Amino acid sequence: MDFIGANILSVSQFERVDIDRVFEVADAMGPYARREKVTRVLEGAILGNMFLEPSTRTRLSFGAAFNLLGGTVRETVGISASAMAKGESLYDTARVLSGYSDVICMRHPQEGSVAEFAAASRVPVVNGGDGANEHPTQALLDLYTIRKELEGHGRSLDEFRIAMIGDLKHGRTVHSLCKLLCLFGRVQVALVSPPELAMPEEIVDRLRKAGHQVTVTDQLEGAIAHVDIVYSTRIQEERFASQEEADRYRGRFRLNRDIFTRHAEPNTVIMHPLPRDSRAEANELDIDLNEHPSLAIFRQTDNGLLVRMALFALLLGVEDKVDHYAHAVRWHSRRNPV
Amino acid sequence: MDFIGANILSVSQFERVDIDRVFEVADAMGPYARREKVTRVLEGAILGNMFLEPSTRTRLSFGAAFNLLGGTVRETVGISASAMAKGESLYDTARVLSGYSDVICMRHPQEGSVAEFAAASRVPVVNGGDGANEHPTQALLDLYTIRKELEGHGRSLDEFRIAMIGDLKHGRTVHSLCKLLCLFGRVQVALVSPPELAMPEEIVDRLRKAGHQVTVTDQLEGAIAHVDIVYSTRIQEERFASQEEADRYRGRFRLNRDIFTRHAEPNTVIMHPLPRDSRAEANELDIDLNEHPSLAIFRQTDNGLLVRMALFALLLGVEDKVDHYAHAVRWHSRRNPV
Amino acid sequence: MDFIGANILSVSQFERVDIDRVFEVADAMGPYARREKVTRVLEGAILGNMFLEPSTRTRLSFGAAFNLLGGTVRETVGISASAMAKGESLYDTARVLSGYSDVICMRHPQEGSVAEFAAASRVPVVNGGDGANEHPTQALLDLYTIRKELEGHGRSLDEFRIAMIGDLKHGRTVHSLCKLLCLFGRVQVALVSPPELAMPEEIVDRLRKAGHQVTVTDQLEGAIAHVDIVYSTRIQEERFASQEEADRYRGRFRLNRDIFTRHAEPNTVIMHPLPRDSRAEANELDIDLNEHPSLAIFRQTDNGLLVRMALFALLLGVEDKVDHYAHAVRWHSRRNPV
Repeated sequence: MDFIGANILSVSQFERVDIDRVFEVADAMGPYARREKVTRVLEGAILGNMFLEPSTRTRLSFGAAFNLLGGTVRETVGISASAMAKGESLYDTARVLSGYSDVICMRHPQEGSVAEFAAASRVPVVNGGDGANEHPTQALLDLYTIRKELEGHGRSLDEFRIAMIGDLKHGRTVHSLCKLLCLFGRVQVALVSPPELAMPEEIVDRLRKAGHQVTVTDQLEGAIAHVDIVYSTRIQEERFASQEEADRYRGRFRLNRDIFTRHAEPNTVIMHPLPRDSRAEANELDIDLNEHPSLAIFRQTDNGLLVRMALFALLLGVEDKVDHYAHAVRWHSRRNPV
Repeated sequence: MDFIGANILSVSQFERVDIDRVFEVADAMGPYARREKVTRVLEGAILGNMFLEPSTRTRLSFGAAFNLLGGTVRETVGISASAMAKGESLYDTARVLSGYSDVICMRHPQEGSVAEFAAASRVPVVNGGDGANEHPTQALLDLYTIRKELEGHGRSLDEFRIAMIGDLKHGRTVHSLCKLLCLFGRVQVALVSPPELAMPEEIVDRLRKAGHQVTVTDQLEGAIAHVDIVYSTRIQEERFASQEEADRYRGRFRLNRDIFTRHAEPNTVIMHPLPRDSRAEANELDIDLNEHPSLAIFRQTDNGLLVRMALFALLLGVEDKVDHYAHAVRWHSRRNPV
Repeated sequence: MDFIGANILSVSQFERVDIDRVFEVADAMGPYARREKVTRVLEGAILGNMFLEPSTRTRLSFGAAFNLLGGTVRETVGISASAMAKGESLYDTARVLSGYSDVICMRHPQEGSVAEFAAASRVPVVNGGDGANEHPTQALLDLYTIRKELEGHGRSLDEFRIAMIGDLKHGRTVHSLCKLLCLFGRVQVALVSPPELAMPEEIVDRLRKAGHQVTVTDQLEGAIAHVDIVYSTRIQEERFASQEEADRYRGRFRLNRDIFTRHAEPNTVIMHPLPRDSRAEANELDIDLNEHPSLAIFRQTDNGLLVRMALFALLLGVEDKVDHYAHAVRWHSRRNPV
């Protein structure tokens, strides 16, 4: 992919060499994210951060990533704040707003809307999530996290074991992650869900065609027994066809410290796309794992900064100039990466 | 007008020499808006961008213009977000908030409110639209666009032909534009609307007293036949006195590619204040003209950046220093002006 | 207190030496707030300005203070905009968002929530108000204002006279101010309120134990007769137990020009925490004092910038470097402190 001026709309755009390039640049962003250095490479550049559907975490991550490269952010939150609500087309919006920015991140509740916007935009557009469709930077940061976490384990993206748990039918993040995994070597994938919330056949087929070994199960305990990564997602009760189904499976896909300690290998890594419902009744990754060193969920969000910085640097063609415009940070930072 | 420290509240403040000055400075802003150069002239300056009524386009245009001069933006969107909703006076708000900014842009739903705010503010205030009253920067960018578009046509602001179409009774933008036209030479103005949505007599009189030749008609086709500029605005059905009237005029003021091609001169320029309702049922500039080179509506919004940059530079007295604090842009920009 | 990396959650954290240090640094911020100089000391630093409950004034004051030190601001307004609404814990939010900022200001509607957030945050957190609990920077700016206003009067924080008026039972600001006063010498405090809205006994006791002379009264006129400072707060009618009570006290705690001129010493200073309800029916500081030189309410908000700049500088350990990274301002500022 030629990154300069490109739109980032889907994980399907990426070939292996592109992933490698993004991750290489992301690695180089560490000193800036850890606040050892400050760069002015994007001084004067404007990010249009358009969140027509709210998403505090993703919005702030994109904005902070751009700031960390020295750029400036102009923001829009909520679709009611926009002329779109009064019949303005995405075409008009894109033509106008792309005159005010150098790159645009957009989240929009409707599938396909970001691609439609990008087609009319005069500047690169990054998809920050368009409904149930795509959220490519989430998939990239998940993959980047897996790569980093595996480093100490003698494993790599070309040979590791992962269990994906929860609602695999509706989970946009696990779908995208599986698509990216197809670019890599021999992965053992355990798909753990109630049958009615199983991973779509089409994605299972893609994994198998890519040479991966796929297991489908509804037994959490066995599936997490011999994996490097557990990727947990929430099951919302209303996703079940009936209350009986919901009752049958309640809590059976909820990972907690007891189950993890009894069944998983000690250095297995726990991931989650966040946000997580921390209320007691949620079918969710349990908070009793909060201080467990295996819990990588906050390392994931920290990595999100690196990956988004890398994408901005590549789209604007400054990845080799970041260090040239850098100087040491002037304040005492307490910020420690997780 | 002495621009330094002035408030920009109304088009009535401007004399011809002021317009010339704003446009001259706007011309000089081109390299910054096209991202060839970056300036730090307003480094450390703060724009208070107060949109107590939402307007994504105008808000982002003001904010980006300030950023392009190197300044920083603090923003407020929506009146409910404000203590005003709990009985705070505009006086108090202005006295407090003007301590946090170096210049303030304000949009407010009530006529006269921005002037009231400005009277108590300790820093210059730019009216970003106060209800049905004024939106002076829109009028300035419209006039600036006309001037620029005429350049290649052997015409000038002192001798050209314009047709204004649509709801001329309620259209704040066409009213303000007409007032500004009164500062210039011989303009032929065709006012095209249903009789009940005609331009107010007071404005027609001002145009005539200024020496312009004014035609009033409800026939779109003839009116656009020999003009340099077509300025189109929407007619909302609810503006008609009765459904019969609405039915009688439906679509007759909607400019589309067929009508334009058959009746207008080839290099006639099409303008519109935006936003535009792109839904099929709207009485609106048709989207089948989207790719037509005559369509200047996105050049208008691009010009808005230049005009707003010029105003900020003049109000803060830095118009002659912009280049002194400039350097070449460091990233690869795909942004091309329309 | 060791300021570097500290959280600012409560006025109770401050000892006298800390107050002195904050005020000393605040004094040094004057040239930046008056726009004589611009500093880059926090270039590249990011403030996460999280206002989960709206408060335009406080939000903009924090943001502008950070900008005045050269830093960048990422903002969130409103709790609905947040995943918290969907069950995300403060713990998760803090762990994630503290990866995107170098310091966080948070306002939250619930008491104790900011401390809970701070406990999980990886960067310093400043409490911007947590329900009825604390708003420490307001108390600091009030005290700083008193100190500054007394300077010309031959008084000091260790010997002056203050009357606090209005709803002293529910007023978070007067409670916090009283706690801070306990760090200082001989203060004469007149507490003026209807009996049912009196200052809590616990706070009166603290003042007396600190050596201050406290008078409790419901007579405004006498209480303001011989004081240096009148600190006025609003009484909301719904705070009274019955309509009879409300009727009995209506307007009796409303300070206006007539009462002030007849009863107070000429150079007595009038303060108020703002916002103020300027509607005629409010039991509130009257707008007929707006142009009176004794009215310090806008000097208070101006001072808020200085105090917040000082806190940011101290928390990030740059208070001695601000001048080193400074240069003269480049634009013509009309901004004059009140």
